[in-house]
Amino acid sequence: MISIALFGAGRIGSLHGANVARRDDVELRYVSDVFPEAAQKLADKFSAQVVSIEEALADSSLDAVIIASSTDTHAQLIEASAKAGKAIFCEKPIDLDIQQVEACLAVVEETGVALSLGFNRRFDINFRALQQAVAEQKIGNLEMVSITSRDPSPPPVDYIKVSGGLFRDMMIHDLDMARWLLGEEPSEVFATASCLVNPEIEQAGDVDTAMVILKTPSGRMCQISNSRRAAYGYDQRIEVFGSAGMMRAENAASNTVELFTEAGVRKDNPPHFFLERYMDAYQRELDEFVDAIVAGVTPSVGGNDGRMALVLADAALQSYQTGVPVKL
Amino acid sequence: MISIALFGAGRIGSLHGANVARRDDVELRYVSDVFPEAAQKLADKFSAQVVSIEEALADSSLDAVIIASSTDTHAQLIEASAKAGKAIFCEKPIDLDIQQVEACLAVVEETGVALSLGFNRRFDINFRALQQAVAEQKIGNLEMVSITSRDPSPPPVDYIKVSGGLFRDMMIHDLDMARWLLGEEPSEVFATASCLVNPEIEQAGDVDTAMVILKTPSGRMCQISNSRRAAYGYDQRIEVFGSAGMMRAENAASNTVELFTEAGVRKDNPPHFFLERYMDAYQRELDEFVDAIVAGVTPSVGGNDGRMALVLADAALQSYQTGVPVKL
Amino acid sequence: MISIALFGAGRIGSLHGANVARRDDVELRYVSDVFPEAAQKLADKFSAQVVSIEEALADSSLDAVIIASSTDTHAQLIEASAKAGKAIFCEKPIDLDIQQVEACLAVVEETGVALSLGFNRRFDINFRALQQAVAEQKIGNLEMVSITSRDPSPPPVDYIKVSGGLFRDMMIHDLDMARWLLGEEPSEVFATASCLVNPEIEQAGDVDTAMVILKTPSGRMCQISNSRRAAYGYDQRIEVFGSAGMMRAENAASNTVELFTEAGVRKDNPPHFFLERYMDAYQRELDEFVDAIVAGVTPSVGGNDGRMALVLADAALQSYQTGVPVKL
Amino acid sequence: MISIALFGAGRIGSLHGANVARRDDVELRYVSDVFPEAAQKLADKFSAQVVSIEEALADSSLDAVIIASSTDTHAQLIEASAKAGKAIFCEKPIDLDIQQVEACLAVVEETGVALSLGFNRRFDINFRALQQAVAEQKIGNLEMVSITSRDPSPPPVDYIKVSGGLFRDMMIHDLDMARWLLGEEPSEVFATASCLVNPEIEQAGDVDTAMVILKTPSGRMCQISNSRRAAYGYDQRIEVFGSAGMMRAENAASNTVELFTEAGVRKDNPPHFFLERYMDAYQRELDEFVDAIVAGVTPSVGGNDGRMALVLADAALQSYQTGVPVKL
Repeated sequence: MISIALFGAGRIGSLHGANVARRDDVELRYVSDVFPEAAQKLADKFSAQVVSIEEALADSSLDAVIIASSTDTHAQLIEASAKAGKAIFCEKPIDLDIQQVEACLAVVEETGVALSLGFNRRFDINFRALQQAVAEQKIGNLEMVSITSRDPSPPPVDYIKVSGGLFRDMMIHDLDMARWLLGEEPSEVFATASCLVNPEIEQAGDVDTAMVILKTPSGRMCQISNSRRAAYGYDQRIEVFGSAGMMRAENAASNTVELFTEAGVRKDNPPHFFLERYMDAYQRELDEFVDAIVAGVTPSVGGNDGRMALVLADAALQSYQTGVPVKL
Repeated sequence: MISIALFGAGRIGSLHGANVARRDDVELRYVSDVFPEAAQKLADKFSAQVVSIEEALADSSLDAVIIASSTDTHAQLIEASAKAGKAIFCEKPIDLDIQQVEACLAVVEETGVALSLGFNRRFDINFRALQQAVAEQKIGNLEMVSITSRDPSPPPVDYIKVSGGLFRDMMIHDLDMARWLLGEEPSEVFATASCLVNPEIEQAGDVDTAMVILKTPSGRMCQISNSRRAAYGYDQRIEVFGSAGMMRAENAASNTVELFTEAGVRKDNPPHFFLERYMDAYQRELDEFVDAIVAGVTPSVGGNDGRMALVLADAALQSYQTGVPVKL
Repeated sequence: MISIALFGAGRIGSLHGANVARRDDVELRYVSDVFPEAAQKLADKFSAQVVSIEEALADSSLDAVIIASSTDTHAQLIEASAKAGKAIFCEKPIDLDIQQVEACLAVVEETGVALSLGFNRRFDINFRALQQAVAEQKIGNLEMVSITSRDPSPPPVDYIKVSGGLFRDMMIHDLDMARWLLGEEPSEVFATASCLVNPEIEQAGDVDTAMVILKTPSGRMCQISNSRRAAYGYDQRIEVFGSAGMMRAENAASNTVELFTEAGVRKDNPPHFFLERYMDAYQRELDEFVDAIVAGVTPSVGGNDGRMALVLADAALQSYQTGVPVKL
Repeated sequence: MISIALFGAGRIGSLHGANVARRDDVELRYVSDVFPEAAQKLADKFSAQVVSIEEALADSSLDAVIIASSTDTHAQLIEASAKAGKAIFCEKPIDLDIQQVEACLAVVEETGVALSLGFNRRFDINFRALQQAVAEQKIGNLEMVSITSRDPSPPPVDYIKVSGGLFRDMMIHDLDMARWLLGEEPSEVFATASCLVNPEIEQAGDVDTAMVILKTPSGRMCQISNSRRAAYGYDQRIEVFGSAGMMRAENAASNTVELFTEAGVRKDNPPHFFLERYMDAYQRELDEFVDAIVAGVTPSVGGNDGRMALVLADAALQSYQTGVPVKL
């Protein structure tokens, strides 16, 4: 039986809490949140105890922590948890500042604890099938990757202001997908972007529409297309192309129903947003984390993945700002 | 908080148990099974108590029962539970004998308890969308229904022998779908069938491949196509056609991935069988049952639905045996 | 160089004329029609000569005729052409009366001329792929066939009155498909039907909506679903099911475009009607006829196919009228 | 009746010849080719006369010419035809050298003749639907375009050497699509490329795999993905994205058939190459040219479209060579 503390009882924390609580081999022991009522509500649901983070980490029999608090607390909580010897699952990103990230990861490495980053898309059944097909050479030698990633609607401008911007907040998921699929680290990043959705985003110093090309040393290429708004809902598709063929993962379907009338053929839009689309992926990523702790193995998505995605996001931002490609 | 006893701790009983246990407003209080170890294992998982059926029904504070034991016990357990004043969720069928069914339903009616039958397909998100579209006249006036229903592989011949035969065991689901979608009771049934999958099924006096046409008083028609075996997996599709258009529900997809190679375009087969395909439907049917008890309303699928599906199955069998259509 | 006379310069005659005229090895020598202007217009287009049918058949160097005149003239023109020793391509049906058909085919057999019937769907690229897959055992042993066939809108009631009725005029195509795919002659036919589209069709003694089940001696089954009206356009689909899998041919697409908006995903309806849908099939059927003449081989769709389709249509009509299956 | 001379009797010339010859209002009067036998064969088929280009242009009653000879003759033949006052349909490109193109177009402008460029994809029914949807604001304000364009296999290296390279020979079609869809001229081009298909292409100084991003003054973006080889056949897809939705044109289907077996679901690959895929588009582009001459209006794809596509191709090549975006 693994015992876990959950730091952060918001929407994503609740989801992680439910995902570990449903397992027979996990005890969700503690919940902490800056809002005590939120913590209490979640704790009641899973028969857990509300404690402070310090109290949780002081429990020497506690095995692991899930960090689902606000982004600005991640690095500090990772460090504290690592020093307390706990295995760590942390929502991405580690931090928006690459130096903070590196300092944090140095602590993790020193302590030797397991750290798993919440790049949930790596656990999407469709994208996994793509990655596995690439690994098994089902499309021969990989040559090109195309990632489409569009949110149904932009977050509040207040969130935009503290988000780190589109490249670090949104595209970072796609950059992680790119690294995962490309099979080698990109050596060049070119980014271009516009503010077409909401002028307030531009006033906040950010963009809402972007295209990026990554290139690897062996000549593989990846294009990413991002928008903060898609009228038809959450749009998450990937295509991989190689010497022996192509494979693509389409959006998940809300249902399989087609209506044929005089007006044409109509299907429903895909699931609305990430909670609906990646519900299964969230469960699988936590399962992998728990399984890894139980088995004493390293989780598949680690600190360096968090670091490298940020390096690419920073490079994309720099490319956009300078107008020229950035070499890595 | 609703308290429930579960009768039957097999595969489907476990599923129902998990579906009610995950709710905050339900206490799975008792589990009974002819195999005590199975009952104990399930009871442990959900902090329930293993008791005999008699003990469970004797608890006057128990609200409801879920009957997931073997088919031959259904009618008797429904009657006992009804007399004890419990709301009842029962797996289909009530019984394979129409007279038994009617006797059982007379008891239910007398006691006035709620009875919900486990026609899980009515809770499939895709088929519900069809039914709703028909109800909302999205395809105008309904004229034709086409139901395709094929199992991945036939059950053991020993099961076939006690199953009541293809019409009562398998097609009964499709006959329920037909009634639900047609919006009026069929007045004529024609059935034809063959044994093409396994000669032992024929030796057991049953068929494994069948086609049926139902017709209603207003002239609507429904065709059903059944096979006990489909090489590509569980095949469950419905099409409704009306004066203003057509709507169809395709099989659920295992994933959204397409592989394009020199050999053509390839997709994965649908989910393997009913547990995978109707996982969500099983959850929704139990939710509806619990919600109905809480709200004090009648569940949507009641005893008469169980009775009428069996009437149609019997008529189909008779039509197949006599070679002529059966009027109802 | 093959020389051909075209009898009938209407819509379908013009199509056949264009299909043979585009070949380098065919001379469209004569055009005949009861409307001289129609004949002249077509003749001018293809540098042919307008003559009477008698004149055309009197030309001993003429190789073949295409009969695309009204249905009631088919049998008589086939006989006259056969006696004149011409290879014959004739639009279906030979006649609406089975005795006429048999008398006509006796003449054809006596004269030994080649006769090809215009069952255009046999030349549809999609249905051919199905038939070939069945022949190559790609779905193992064939067990079930499902044919959906719906016209966009009913013909004028005046046409209905002389058409021979839905079974002989419309379903006859589907019955031919069934025979072609089933690989053995049906031994039993059950039909049911309604008049749901237009009450005037009922007043004319016909139906507009029908379902049929065919069964063969080895136990294969075929279901056919017909409607004289489909709001979404011409609906022509076939599914074949066997021991090793299933294959289906969907409607042809008007284009490959999908529009994704807040209202859902939208595609265009299929091509409007048979001229659009079967344009290529019409060309291929004429090509096969010409190629067969050139090569001196028998065309694939002969007089017996015309006869048997009518036998099945008559049986379906009789089944509908008597309410019981008809044995053949 | 319009009279036309065809310069070039190769594969594409034959296609254009057949497309105009099938019209009632066009006389294909002359055919010229450097290979007299090829010219004669085509002339025989369409009852045309084999003459030299000079003779053809000297016929003052000749209305128009179709230039389908080798690329290096285009500019010169355009100039000669323009000076002879003939309406001109010319296969793309005008020339591979932008200065030659501009000189040639100056002559055309001076003479005032109609010039139509063979950007066949503009006449593809699917891409036209996209362009029309964009024009009608069906996806709101256009923001992003994604063009995928992959050939089934690379041309011979000898062709590569004289082709002008991937950007001028292959991507030029996609750049034309981009201009057509974007609705404003790109102001920036970034290109990256690799040689992954065939090292001999690299030795010939060219690339075989490329990605490009275009940006317009208003912030619209377009990404293009090119490969000289696709194992699954000719891959030609476009997606447009805007404030109110997304629209995409998939590859044309070879047929509508799906095979379901234990191995999964299988469809055929798209039509093999451009002649199969764009057969209809070739016909429509010639129809538009002839209709424009008859009506005395300007064809929709003119000299400037040829020039601008080459400007973009040159910019893409320069960006690839310098490693930085090129401003226009």
